[in-house]
Amino acid sequence: MINFQTSPEQYKHWKLSIDGQVARLSMDVQEDETLAEGYKLKLNSYDLGVDIELADAIQRLRFEHPEVRAVVVTSLKPRIFCAGANIYMLGTSSHAFKVNFCKFTNETRCAIEDDSHHSGRCYIAALNGTASGGGYELAIACDEIYLVDDGNSAVSLPEVPLLGVLPGTGGLTRLVDKRKVRRDRADVFSTLAEGLKGKRAKDWGLIDDSFPTSKFQEAVDARVAQVVNLRGDVDASFPSSLWERGQGRGTYRANPSPLVPFPEGGEKNGIKLNPLEAKSTDNGREYKYVSLKLHPEKRYADLTVRGPEANLPTTPDEIQELGDDYWPLRAYRELDDMLLHLRVNEPEIGLICLRTEGAIDDVLAIDKTLAANRDYWLVREIVLHMARVLRRLDLTAKSFFAIIEPGSSFAGNLLELALASDRTYMLNNPEVAQTSVCVSELNAGALPMNNGLTRLQSRFLAEPVKVDEVLAHEGSFDTEAADQAGLVTFSPDDLDWEDEIRVAIEERTSLSPDALTGMEASLRFAGPESMDTKIFGRLTAWQNWIFQRPNAVGPQGALTNYGKPTQAQFDYKRT
Amino acid sequence: MINFQTSPEQYKHWKLSIDGQVARLSMDVQEDETLAEGYKLKLNSYDLGVDIELADAIQRLRFEHPEVRAVVVTSLKPRIFCAGANIYMLGTSSHAFKVNFCKFTNETRCAIEDDSHHSGRCYIAALNGTASGGGYELAIACDEIYLVDDGNSAVSLPEVPLLGVLPGTGGLTRLVDKRKVRRDRADVFSTLAEGLKGKRAKDWGLIDDSFPTSKFQEAVDARVAQVVNLRGDVDASFPSSLWERGQGRGTYRANPSPLVPFPEGGEKNGIKLNPLEAKSTDNGREYKYVSLKLHPEKRYADLTVRGPEANLPTTPDEIQELGDDYWPLRAYRELDDMLLHLRVNEPEIGLICLRTEGAIDDVLAIDKTLAANRDYWLVREIVLHMARVLRRLDLTAKSFFAIIEPGSSFAGNLLELALASDRTYMLNNPEVAQTSVCVSELNAGALPMNNGLTRLQSRFLAEPVKVDEVLAHEGSFDTEAADQAGLVTFSPDDLDWEDEIRVAIEERTSLSPDALTGMEASLRFAGPESMDTKIFGRLTAWQNWIFQRPNAVGPQGALTNYGKPTQAQFDYKRT
Repeated sequence: MINFQTSPEQYKHWKLSIDGQVARLSMDVQEDETLAEGYKLKLNSYDLGVDIELADAIQRLRFEHPEVRAVVVTSLKPRIFCAGANIYMLGTSSHAFKVNFCKFTNETRCAIEDDSHHSGRCYIAALNGTASGGGYELAIACDEIYLVDDGNSAVSLPEVPLLGVLPGTGGLTRLVDKRKVRRDRADVFSTLAEGLKGKRAKDWGLIDDSFPTSKFQEAVDARVAQVVNLRGDVDASFPSSLWERGQGRGTYRANPSPLVPFPEGGEKNGIKLNPLEAKSTDNGREYKYVSLKLHPEKRYADLTVRGPEANLPTTPDEIQELGDDYWPLRAYRELDDMLLHLRVNEPEIGLICLRTEGAIDDVLAIDKTLAANRDYWLVREIVLHMARVLRRLDLTAKSFFAIIEPGSSFAGNLLELALASDRTYMLNNPEVAQTSVCVSELNAGALPMNNGLTRLQSRFLAEPVKVDEVLAHEGSFDTEAADQAGLVTFSPDDLDWEDEIRVAIEERTSLSPDALTGMEASLRFAGPESMDTKIFGRLTAWQNWIFQRPNAVGPQGALTNYGKPTQAQFDYKRT
Repeated sequence: MINFQTSPEQYKHWKLSIDGQVARLSMDVQEDETLAEGYKLKLNSYDLGVDIELADAIQRLRFEHPEVRAVVVTSLKPRIFCAGANIYMLGTSSHAFKVNFCKFTNETRCAIEDDSHHSGRCYIAALNGTASGGGYELAIACDEIYLVDDGNSAVSLPEVPLLGVLPGTGGLTRLVDKRKVRRDRADVFSTLAEGLKGKRAKDWGLIDDSFPTSKFQEAVDARVAQVVNLRGDVDASFPSSLWERGQGRGTYRANPSPLVPFPEGGEKNGIKLNPLEAKSTDNGREYKYVSLKLHPEKRYADLTVRGPEANLPTTPDEIQELGDDYWPLRAYRELDDMLLHLRVNEPEIGLICLRTEGAIDDVLAIDKTLAANRDYWLVREIVLHMARVLRRLDLTAKSFFAIIEPGSSFAGNLLELALASDRTYMLNNPEVAQTSVCVSELNAGALPMNNGLTRLQSRFLAEPVKVDEVLAHEGSFDTEAADQAGLVTFSPDDLDWEDEIRVAIEERTSLSPDALTGMEASLRFAGPESMDTKIFGRLTAWQNWIFQRPNAVGPQGALTNYGKPTQAQFDYKRT
């Protein structure tokens, strides 16, 4: 079983050091500390284990070190920054694992950009050696890229020429959409195994600058100081645009990054992210607020999120005091870990029935507190984290049915679970017990999807006025009202309820899992596209296709044959 | 060899009849008239041959029948509109053929929307029986959908539940992006083999209305008359926005279609589209203005487009008189046919070296005439056709290198061939003979890509000001100036020229064809996305992935097992 939890004391491959407002995140991959057998992580190449540490470090910077304003991403190995995903690991992995590996590493790079975009932390890739493949893709997820000029070190995307696959971690998309490299130059660069360095790399926009070895450290330090000082001089509170609709996800800052003001919070101490207590049970997994019950023979699972306790604190100081025990942080960290667990450890579970438990008023009270304190650094980070977890759900290749019954608490932030689901079933049984859902201010823009829309906007593309109607609705919606408002798919009465849910589950789990993955990836993201949706939609879908093709993974395929004396043999038919 | 040319006299599967301003396009598929052996086209199911006729009919309506303002798409078979792509054809086709088949059918449906959007012709799907799968996808490419209410006929997308593949002709994208069906309802509909009918189909936005059998014909006729009369009352010339940038491709009209004014031209007689004279040669193919020279052992081909003769007519009447002999129409029809030929008949050719021949001034004279007469119906149709052909090139899964030498005529509309190429090589040999390229008004917006940008805009995403600089440039660019302006990738001098081209060809054709397809699909479409790019990028990439998966095409796959007594067996691991 793959475990996604870690902490700096346990890191094997990264060193995280903090010096005032500057963090250094240094890669030093231990070649024998692999997640699986059969490969060595040479030349700072990585497997999922390395990326789990990176994702953890970025998350911790945001919560534990809010004072940090610049992050230098570099390597402790001489003459090599990072060689990208380990080829032998890819060559020996199952198709499903490769796909999940790429998805997680993509989410990690998007998390870097999310931090930069929303929390103003500047990521500077200090390439003290060659950055190839995923190594360069890590660099272009950063705001600025500086490459040592030692006559040898280069940036490259050698996947197409050497491996017959794509740079699978957003490289092609970020090349033309983020760094806006001219398409013919991007074509040349992406087919050139040895990559580019020096003046041409800079002229083409692949890096921001290069410095000779003797001056590299000094030049990077000077740039970091510049970033920190200039940003430190600007006194500005967090822009409230996060709470407005259409906050422009995917339209990341230009390059090199403008020196945007830092949000408040730098003067505060961070909070500690303690390990989550996850307990495996006979038929599932238990956290404090999140439960999983597996039905393996039926290939579905019940996932329940329990709402907060009553009367939780409402002031910044009290929230800071509660730290990672505060419900919105703890419950969403648990949900995040559960989603990752389901993806890689429970591949045969194709359908998740999402349930919530608790008092709607207690969820609404949380949302009220979050909205009232939106400018406080910790609240901001908590809400941004909730948004990332919900986007992880949107991108999970499993079907989701929300099941709304008496006692459930699909309100405000938890209503997003229903809006993120492929379908919503709500019991219509007003005589016995009322079933309700409710909106809050958090449904209006704080928790956007990857395409930049809220889930309500995505839902009502045909009738945008319905978004306002729903948000303006006073009090909770009973089943009839929710149905009228367009919030539920089906609302059976108690006579039909159990049968209808049972049949829906049976039907869903009988369908081709591949067709469902492609269908859900298409239906979940209507409307505008962003760099993120292009990466997870277009680029990933093409990569997954290539990962199935004999030219990559067949006995004579390029990925299979990498490093062997035999050469790849292609079927040259163009498809 | 598959031939893409046809004409109404040769149609086997469609009847095209014109009655004043109304055309009827009626499907009546002959089950034994298949393009290949091994299947029968029952129930108005289709193969590529059926779709080649449909594409031809739409094209002819635009050129031969400009007076037509509404097109009724219907069936001559009782109780069945169209059953979609033939499953047995798909089951017995190669992967590459399936992919090319889907691409062509997608382009045909986009051509319907292009006609509707730009030439104001209203397409009305009159479903006199069940429209399933590709049948419903044909309907949602139309502006309005009316379904007979006979207690039985339904609309459906049964691909996921019955075949384990996606509706591959834009269905999922148009469902949520064009008709803006709520995503949970789209989920239900796309997993329901029997589909929906009547009130629910209308309430969910899947159709615009349904009428009882006895009143169906009358109701459709009334709607058609309404469309024709209302539009006929509006006197408006063709909106000039086509010639401006960012004309908003992919943002098709709302549904049901507003009654936009018709452009001028309805009073004119059409021109005849005569058969193209294509001649196969020992090592290629020859048209009047377009030549192909194959190098099969090296897996590349030279494709040359010859520019127009000097002193071609400049007035609408003269152009009308010339008809399909007019260079911009003939040369681009030939190029279109050549691209289709290369796609399906020359799968091993992975690289096309694009060349042009002729006098730059003659190309510029053509563009001047087209721009001056942009409001004349035939000129408008010719330019829209050129734009479609260039988009076909953008979507062709082969590499393109533009080769610019003395005597070439990459100017104006032909410059788009260079801008559409993955790379551009321009000889730098000013002492011996000048090599030039040149822009015209047609590079400014008349020939947009699927993403709504011009090719110059796509090229200069990082520096939009360069678009204006290039467009404002007086006279032609020599090699140095073209390089400075960012119009060429490499400009070797004559000492290096031949070697550099040779090596570039050798390197390109040695790479994995699958990786190149995925790479080019990513790098060619930077910037904004439209419904078209979503269909050709995201949806198609997922479909291609599924078309490779054992759950669809393996011995126990759903597509393989369709219609057999055995049931599909799935590997239920979600990827």
